[in-house]
Amino acid sequence: MINGENLVPAPIRWGMVGGGRGSQIGYIHRSAALRDGVFTLVAGAFDLDAERGRAFGTGIGVAAERCYADYQAMFAAEAQRPDGLQAVSIATPNGTHFAICKAALEAGLHVVCEKPLCFTTAEAEELRELAEAKRRVVGVTYGYAGHQLIEQAREMIAAGELGEIRIVQMQFAHGFHNEAVEAANPATKWRVDPKMAGPSYVLGDIGTHPLYLSEVMLPQLKIRRLMCSRQSFVKSRAPLEDNAFTLMEYDSGAVGCVWSCAVNAGSMHGQKIRVIGSKASLEWWDERPNQMSFEVQGKPLQVLERGMGYLHPHALADDRIGGGHPEGLFEAWSNLYVRYARAMVASDRGDTAALAALHYPGIDAGVEGVRWVEHCVRSADAGAVWVDYA
Amino acid sequence: MINGENLVPAPIRWGMVGGGRGSQIGYIHRSAALRDGVFTLVAGAFDLDAERGRAFGTGIGVAAERCYADYQAMFAAEAQRPDGLQAVSIATPNGTHFAICKAALEAGLHVVCEKPLCFTTAEAEELRELAEAKRRVVGVTYGYAGHQLIEQAREMIAAGELGEIRIVQMQFAHGFHNEAVEAANPATKWRVDPKMAGPSYVLGDIGTHPLYLSEVMLPQLKIRRLMCSRQSFVKSRAPLEDNAFTLMEYDSGAVGCVWSCAVNAGSMHGQKIRVIGSKASLEWWDERPNQMSFEVQGKPLQVLERGMGYLHPHALADDRIGGGHPEGLFEAWSNLYVRYARAMVASDRGDTAALAALHYPGIDAGVEGVRWVEHCVRSADAGAVWVDYA
Amino acid sequence: MINGENLVPAPIRWGMVGGGRGSQIGYIHRSAALRDGVFTLVAGAFDLDAERGRAFGTGIGVAAERCYADYQAMFAAEAQRPDGLQAVSIATPNGTHFAICKAALEAGLHVVCEKPLCFTTAEAEELRELAEAKRRVVGVTYGYAGHQLIEQAREMIAAGELGEIRIVQMQFAHGFHNEAVEAANPATKWRVDPKMAGPSYVLGDIGTHPLYLSEVMLPQLKIRRLMCSRQSFVKSRAPLEDNAFTLMEYDSGAVGCVWSCAVNAGSMHGQKIRVIGSKASLEWWDERPNQMSFEVQGKPLQVLERGMGYLHPHALADDRIGGGHPEGLFEAWSNLYVRYARAMVASDRGDTAALAALHYPGIDAGVEGVRWVEHCVRSADAGAVWVDYA
Amino acid sequence: MINGENLVPAPIRWGMVGGGRGSQIGYIHRSAALRDGVFTLVAGAFDLDAERGRAFGTGIGVAAERCYADYQAMFAAEAQRPDGLQAVSIATPNGTHFAICKAALEAGLHVVCEKPLCFTTAEAEELRELAEAKRRVVGVTYGYAGHQLIEQAREMIAAGELGEIRIVQMQFAHGFHNEAVEAANPATKWRVDPKMAGPSYVLGDIGTHPLYLSEVMLPQLKIRRLMCSRQSFVKSRAPLEDNAFTLMEYDSGAVGCVWSCAVNAGSMHGQKIRVIGSKASLEWWDERPNQMSFEVQGKPLQVLERGMGYLHPHALADDRIGGGHPEGLFEAWSNLYVRYARAMVASDRGDTAALAALHYPGIDAGVEGVRWVEHCVRSADAGAVWVDYA
Repeated sequence: MINGENLVPAPIRWGMVGGGRGSQIGYIHRSAALRDGVFTLVAGAFDLDAERGRAFGTGIGVAAERCYADYQAMFAAEAQRPDGLQAVSIATPNGTHFAICKAALEAGLHVVCEKPLCFTTAEAEELRELAEAKRRVVGVTYGYAGHQLIEQAREMIAAGELGEIRIVQMQFAHGFHNEAVEAANPATKWRVDPKMAGPSYVLGDIGTHPLYLSEVMLPQLKIRRLMCSRQSFVKSRAPLEDNAFTLMEYDSGAVGCVWSCAVNAGSMHGQKIRVIGSKASLEWWDERPNQMSFEVQGKPLQVLERGMGYLHPHALADDRIGGGHPEGLFEAWSNLYVRYARAMVASDRGDTAALAALHYPGIDAGVEGVRWVEHCVRSADAGAVWVDYA
Repeated sequence: MINGENLVPAPIRWGMVGGGRGSQIGYIHRSAALRDGVFTLVAGAFDLDAERGRAFGTGIGVAAERCYADYQAMFAAEAQRPDGLQAVSIATPNGTHFAICKAALEAGLHVVCEKPLCFTTAEAEELRELAEAKRRVVGVTYGYAGHQLIEQAREMIAAGELGEIRIVQMQFAHGFHNEAVEAANPATKWRVDPKMAGPSYVLGDIGTHPLYLSEVMLPQLKIRRLMCSRQSFVKSRAPLEDNAFTLMEYDSGAVGCVWSCAVNAGSMHGQKIRVIGSKASLEWWDERPNQMSFEVQGKPLQVLERGMGYLHPHALADDRIGGGHPEGLFEAWSNLYVRYARAMVASDRGDTAALAALHYPGIDAGVEGVRWVEHCVRSADAGAVWVDYA
Repeated sequence: MINGENLVPAPIRWGMVGGGRGSQIGYIHRSAALRDGVFTLVAGAFDLDAERGRAFGTGIGVAAERCYADYQAMFAAEAQRPDGLQAVSIATPNGTHFAICKAALEAGLHVVCEKPLCFTTAEAEELRELAEAKRRVVGVTYGYAGHQLIEQAREMIAAGELGEIRIVQMQFAHGFHNEAVEAANPATKWRVDPKMAGPSYVLGDIGTHPLYLSEVMLPQLKIRRLMCSRQSFVKSRAPLEDNAFTLMEYDSGAVGCVWSCAVNAGSMHGQKIRVIGSKASLEWWDERPNQMSFEVQGKPLQVLERGMGYLHPHALADDRIGGGHPEGLFEAWSNLYVRYARAMVASDRGDTAALAALHYPGIDAGVEGVRWVEHCVRSADAGAVWVDYA
Repeated sequence: MINGENLVPAPIRWGMVGGGRGSQIGYIHRSAALRDGVFTLVAGAFDLDAERGRAFGTGIGVAAERCYADYQAMFAAEAQRPDGLQAVSIATPNGTHFAICKAALEAGLHVVCEKPLCFTTAEAEELRELAEAKRRVVGVTYGYAGHQLIEQAREMIAAGELGEIRIVQMQFAHGFHNEAVEAANPATKWRVDPKMAGPSYVLGDIGTHPLYLSEVMLPQLKIRRLMCSRQSFVKSRAPLEDNAFTLMEYDSGAVGCVWSCAVNAGSMHGQKIRVIGSKASLEWWDERPNQMSFEVQGKPLQVLERGMGYLHPHALADDRIGGGHPEGLFEAWSNLYVRYARAMVASDRGDTAALAALHYPGIDAGVEGVRWVEHCVRSADAGAVWVDYA
């Protein structure tokens, strides 16, 4: 159980790029990082508007001189301090991730970056090489992966409780963008601008979330080929899609499907993953993250509850409050930040065994997300044809 | 409200081919047809074993001399009687539907036939021409279409409550055949034998059910092209599939997806249809047929209940018992049999206006189901490529 | 599995009192009785308006001369026929049940009577003595008890799967009468008129339904004392209540609670029963009758599904269609009518062993329902005090 | 929206009594208090074992010299410091609350205290007088009240959307103590020891939670009389109950029911409140705190979702992350701690208008909870009779 004590030897000195005033994503990064004594916020380049960034930073307790005008200034100045930054989180629009992440790694910092890591597999591989060379941890915030029951699913599948895996059904299908809401909302506008958002909208923005859940639960599955059909139901979004179906064939003979959608009118999130094996299935829905269905063929459906003693110890290790009390997205993110902190500590002391024993959405997940979107787009733009996955 | 009175001027004289001892499907046909005074069971060729068929028939009240050894004998003998058959239901394995249906039409009978009507579009069209020439009604038992809330969906969509239709998500994905259960069960064995089952297993057996629901709800949608990927996870079923994904593009620019699956371990039926429009979505699940979700973007989810006064009169016309009391599959079938009876009466008196005003799964639905499976198989067998729909 | 064959040696000759044109309850009686060849409708006194009753009866296939003006005439005339009535169902307002039931028994008929059987325990006991003297079956239509999963609950509890029983939570709490709807609706008006409805409204009309479910599931429980608090939120209903809470102490030390309510605004039925034992609990809800929760302390919740092979044979014996396909209230009633028919046949041939092996809502359930309401009213009218149950 | 900025002028200097190593409740207090910059943890008497308390405190960043051996020492020493404590939270067993709370108030501190505040109404009133005399804020952690949709319910009821309130159904009915788990678990043992737990177990421990929700939603309701029946199904717990039913009559004519239970085998929390008005009902369940049912009679059920634009501004003011993303219990507690902080600030500057505009579970809620339990116990011990509420 996590109760805020003794998770790392000392809080890691941490800063943020982006995430300032009015930013929802910045708040969730801070809530998660600062919650359990694993990080301490010492610096930030919170805003493109330096003045507003400083006002914001000092308002949340950062020293004025460590509220920087931009990330370059921050990385340079902090490198000169004995108590300088050890790690940084990047919560800026997609188009800037690559450059900031690269600069942070070059500055010797551990990084936590919003997804997507960048826009092309080539860039992603470059970041991976750089991170390896610098021996720095890169976390990518596929935040839903921090939910406790995702660990439970991973362990049950590894233990063979589902039998041979046959089908993986995934979806993230909300309805919030059924109209051109971006026309009036700058915070959303960049998401449908290829320059800022990259080559896709919903594939990268939401489809990669359940995809990463499948990677956590099913590390053995390798995509062999895929096909993707995408649409822009709000016409002004073209060439970026607001709906996409992706079919995948895995090396093992299993098949998968990802439905990515932002025009699923009336739906809240609709993020679900169902893993179907020869003996049983598991199903999890991010809006009810404290429950997971386990369906053994020929037996009554079972509903597993977070926090209960029958769960795997790896799942229970994340527990903050007993079963019945609902945990939410903030706990999922906090779990990831605890893992990031542990990985950074292990990396710093060169403890490769400890590093290997940890799993979290890191640089590989970042690379894979970019690669998957790239293939989806290639397939879709060629007329929704099958493309080999490499 | 239906309460068994005055639905047709007089019960229609009706018989069955198949559906004898131990047949679940025969029982549901009889329960539906006989329930409301719309049909009366006067004859049958219930069983390949004539003796057993006669024992069964007399046991349920059919005169011994009208329990026939086979359908040919029945059609011939009944044609000689002044009180002979007017309509027949066919509840035999798939491979026999075409011949029996054709013989029944040639004998001047109205027909209710289990789906699939036959195995090829050519055969299906032949039956359609014959039915038109003979002016006989052919009903095809896409039984779920009789649920009251399907009417409600049809009316709400027609009234524009969803806006422009964008996406149709369909699935029928049960888990009962996750293992080779057919090895030990003759009643299931024919379903995976191409000679008896036709060119597909789950596409035709279950996928056509939600497909037909989409035809009822969305009569204006026309498939432009489709692609289908199918698998035989239980190897002995090849070339017949036990899982398939079908993607469809409609003329209007809308897209659709059908997931057909018999290896969805632990799932009961999993038959669902979700229609997504520019303003709102509807979702219906056959296992909770008395409820339907209506989700208007930006408003709280609404759950519509069968039998309530706020429903469309066309939906309420099917009501047998007030809201709150659950109706089930038998009521859905009974609703269809009432419509079949009304269509037969209208046809008999040449009332084309009455016929046109009725909608029910008839010969067109039968043809369309066969055509859809044919295209799915063609796509799948060519490597899951897109094929034009014609 | 029930499929309409061989349930009784020959259909029982059956008639109805009440249940004519526009009657929902009449339709459900006929649908249930006639469905499986266990009864055949030969006579009726369907309506207070003799002419309308005859029109109705002939419309559903009863010979004109056996459509009677009143029940007295029917019982007298039918007694003279060699093919006369063997059984009668009573679907008239509450205030008439006692007299008709008594007359039917005196005429030597088996009876199926709507609940409540009568208004006082003294009357109910009189009917019980008469039925015993005449060796006639009396069925009382606590129709929800026919749902298959009620049998499953009964068997699981008997097998000790819940441990020692501690608490029984019951409710039937709908919202349809949150306003004085009876002011405008004669079909509802009598329910709140003490002369026609008896000493209570919701206690007798709906509270006795889950109470009877508890009697089926927990035959060993005996009420020791109870207290009842009742309210008339729609003032014009006083002294009849539209809401009531009843607390019960059982001889065993277990306790129970029944919430009876017709002003639960927005609720459909809200009929639920939860049985809590020292090891596990069962919960069933009449609006989703194909599912039942089984909750073993310290294990994941399980959802049992009707029709599945893991159920008790006594539950599966009622099955009409496989799991996944929803059955509804009509099947529950049909199950009861099958049991009534079997009991009548067993009674007619003096087969007391067969009779003892059947359980169904019969005369004892009828007596108990009346007694319970009587005690509830006595408690409530004395200021919601505890009264001994005798 | 809350994002951690500008909630109070400066963090309030805060300490804890209890809540040390291994304490789940201590962790949730700290998570809630420290999350949004509203409090800063400067001191603590975390543990009866002073050494362990110091190790714990320094481990979470408290200066060693401000980790005290007991609360008396802490209040005395901190009073001498210019940067001494301003507020303290009490997370110790029930039997100590009164003394610590009294001492804290006498030391001029604001207090946040676990419920129950104390064991008798007389003690509770004494604390209320003391708090008023000292002009200090006392918060009582009825934590579920911090969920955003509770505000929504309060506003909808105040706006008359339910009509006249008739019935309030409440329950907190878990199954975790279906056996004598306390025999082996010291952390639970004190809950069933009257010396430490007070005059009740489940009434005070869990029943007061939904009771307080009803006070938030329905501030106008006043209990006129109540009756309570309680049981000790695990015999060793007597005289403390592990199950209780409480019926209440309100001055307005409305009625209420609270089911408090710790032996509801297999249930997780089962904390629900349903408020039934003449026009509509609201229902909320703490295990799915992001949803609330709104049922208008004669219309489809609606499901309101946390974070959506259609909610009342008072509800949305608590939002930390958009709709669809689940918030959990930690957010509910954080919301309360924000309100506590604002109340303390308002109190310190004598801003009675600001104080009056805030609502949170404070001293009045603490008094009322104690009073309610006292009346329940008096009723139960007199044989479950009605007692006037005063």
